[in-house]
Amino acid sequence: MSITRREFSKLGAFGLAASALPMVGQAPERKIGYCVIGLGRIADHFMRGVAQGSTSKITGLVSGHRDKAEKIAQQYGVPKSSIYSYEEMDKFRDNKSIDAVYVALPNSMHAEYTIRSAKAGKHVLCEKPMSVAVSEAEAMVAACKAKNVKLMIAYRLHYEPTTLKAIKLIRDGAIGKVQAIDSANGFNIAPGEWRSTKALGGGGPLMDVGIYSLNATRYLTGEEPVAFTAVATTPDDDGRFQGVEENLSWTMRFPSGAVTSCSTTYGASMPGYYKVFGSKGWLQVNEFGYEGVHLTASYRESRGAPATTIDETNPEKDPMHFVRQADHFSRCILENRTPDTSGEEGLKDMQHIQSIYRAAGISMG
Amino acid sequence: MSITRREFSKLGAFGLAASALPMVGQAPERKIGYCVIGLGRIADHFMRGVAQGSTSKITGLVSGHRDKAEKIAQQYGVPKSSIYSYEEMDKFRDNKSIDAVYVALPNSMHAEYTIRSAKAGKHVLCEKPMSVAVSEAEAMVAACKAKNVKLMIAYRLHYEPTTLKAIKLIRDGAIGKVQAIDSANGFNIAPGEWRSTKALGGGGPLMDVGIYSLNATRYLTGEEPVAFTAVATTPDDDGRFQGVEENLSWTMRFPSGAVTSCSTTYGASMPGYYKVFGSKGWLQVNEFGYEGVHLTASYRESRGAPATTIDETNPEKDPMHFVRQADHFSRCILENRTPDTSGEEGLKDMQHIQSIYRAAGISMG
Repeated sequence: MSITRREFSKLGAFGLAASALPMVGQAPERKIGYCVIGLGRIADHFMRGVAQGSTSKITGLVSGHRDKAEKIAQQYGVPKSSIYSYEEMDKFRDNKSIDAVYVALPNSMHAEYTIRSAKAGKHVLCEKPMSVAVSEAEAMVAACKAKNVKLMIAYRLHYEPTTLKAIKLIRDGAIGKVQAIDSANGFNIAPGEWRSTKALGGGGPLMDVGIYSLNATRYLTGEEPVAFTAVATTPDDDGRFQGVEENLSWTMRFPSGAVTSCSTTYGASMPGYYKVFGSKGWLQVNEFGYEGVHLTASYRESRGAPATTIDETNPEKDPMHFVRQADHFSRCILENRTPDTSGEEGLKDMQHIQSIYRAAGISMG
Repeated sequence: MSITRREFSKLGAFGLAASALPMVGQAPERKIGYCVIGLGRIADHFMRGVAQGSTSKITGLVSGHRDKAEKIAQQYGVPKSSIYSYEEMDKFRDNKSIDAVYVALPNSMHAEYTIRSAKAGKHVLCEKPMSVAVSEAEAMVAACKAKNVKLMIAYRLHYEPTTLKAIKLIRDGAIGKVQAIDSANGFNIAPGEWRSTKALGGGGPLMDVGIYSLNATRYLTGEEPVAFTAVATTPDDDGRFQGVEENLSWTMRFPSGAVTSCSTTYGASMPGYYKVFGSKGWLQVNEFGYEGVHLTASYRESRGAPATTIDETNPEKDPMHFVRQADHFSRCILENRTPDTSGEEGLKDMQHIQSIYRAAGISMG
């Protein structure tokens, strides 16, 4: 496997583009059983995705709300004996029906529950951002390595066909040398969300949704950024924010000479997108949500040559992103492969987020 | 007039949005005569614009190519006696048919020819960027003031109806509080252009086309930026660049808390656009070229309220931007008004460009 990984790496940091596509294949001999830790909104998408796929099943739940958990357990055929409170979760060590966990808790709890799950011998699929500090991310990677369990960060767009097509077009040189990328992703947060507190979110929109733009610049260029600048503000006209930034714009420089400008916010309507500007043309992806990823592009082989244009939308509906993501991790477990969005990949984002926050004068962790 | 100007200023730095709209009015009693200095591509657009408008006429030409100038003179009914070389240009002081000049020379010559024209008692419409150094821009403003002639910088989008509609929507609060703006503008420059040399361009894409993004963030917010960060690179794979940057990304922070992320390039296809992200919705303008300015927007009065959407394109064809621009300056001269895009406004962009270059570690001037 390590050779394959190295071969993929020649394409850039993200071999995933090549390996992730043939995802919906033949059903495996057995399904991977997942225990879902945290039963919020995104867990619902995940569980519906697992139910629709052919490689995975829900076999356990961890929640502070027994009633809610019992209702969901019934829905997915989980026995009552596989419902755990946060305190007694570690007992699932002996539950053979649970191969892996899906950590869908507030950001600040990702490290603790990933490490506890690894110590119980379970593979871990953890939501992004992986953690709220670089040191935590490092500890998560180390804990999973020590117990020989796999760690994958839930970057669902890495398994989404339109995103993969965009990456392939760039790798194939369609738009020529990538010179600049512009990206934004944010939203106007409702009052009272855990994400707008430093205690639970660990950071503001950069950690939560700006990470999509950051991660995109990396999978699009296949490079790691080497310089960072940023400005951040928190006008907070209505007292929604507890120690996290409201608006943040940043730039990055990559070894090839590509530059990027990105913005994120919790205070405005900011539908996710990136535009990639190359020597032969441009490529744009709109919509980082659960469906409707939309790709447009225009490029030409040489000056004056006719333009090739692309305008297409992934027609799949939610929870297809989650089907593909769970399938990938389950197959990695079954076939003993390293997930395309491994803990090490998530750690890189955490390191870059730290660099961006530092540039903005914000302390992280 | 100064009171009106001050009243407009309450709307933000750019009163222009309100005053520029009723532009194509009744024809004035006499037309303003323009001498065009520099007969390159943009001068052709300008002259066609003047010919189609009702307030202006071409009455003089300054060129180093007598043959070319005579051909154009015939086309626009300019007498041969009103064609000047660069050396003898100052003689137009006594030419009563010339009220104003249009400076369409390479950037590094804007200051000299603006100041010489002012000294000859002519009003000056100067292409952007106004100059290649802040000190030059200050000298241009001072020279025009000393001779009591008007100075306008040719920011044509300030007179373009779709752009003005975007500004008005924002000023009227349609998209709520502006939190972030993302913008890019650039192109893949052909080899051998004067713009890719420091000697003539004074700077790279930031000065030439990135200035559209910079200027847009100012007219959209009605504020002046107070903090700047930037990264720049010049991979220059084919030796096109003589001392100017190839790619540049920058951020700015505004007093209200709005942040911006922008990119510009001479090395990639980068169609101009800005996206404005507000607390009630977003607004986007695509296309900074001579026609086809395209406005889209989506906003809602409150959470859950139905969305208002806009999707419209200015149907006017080139050289209509130039018609409106010339009309504005001619009416300002005839009615003794200060142009909306005065020398002082251009000077602010030069100061901000200097701040951006400084942030990128690039020396200007």
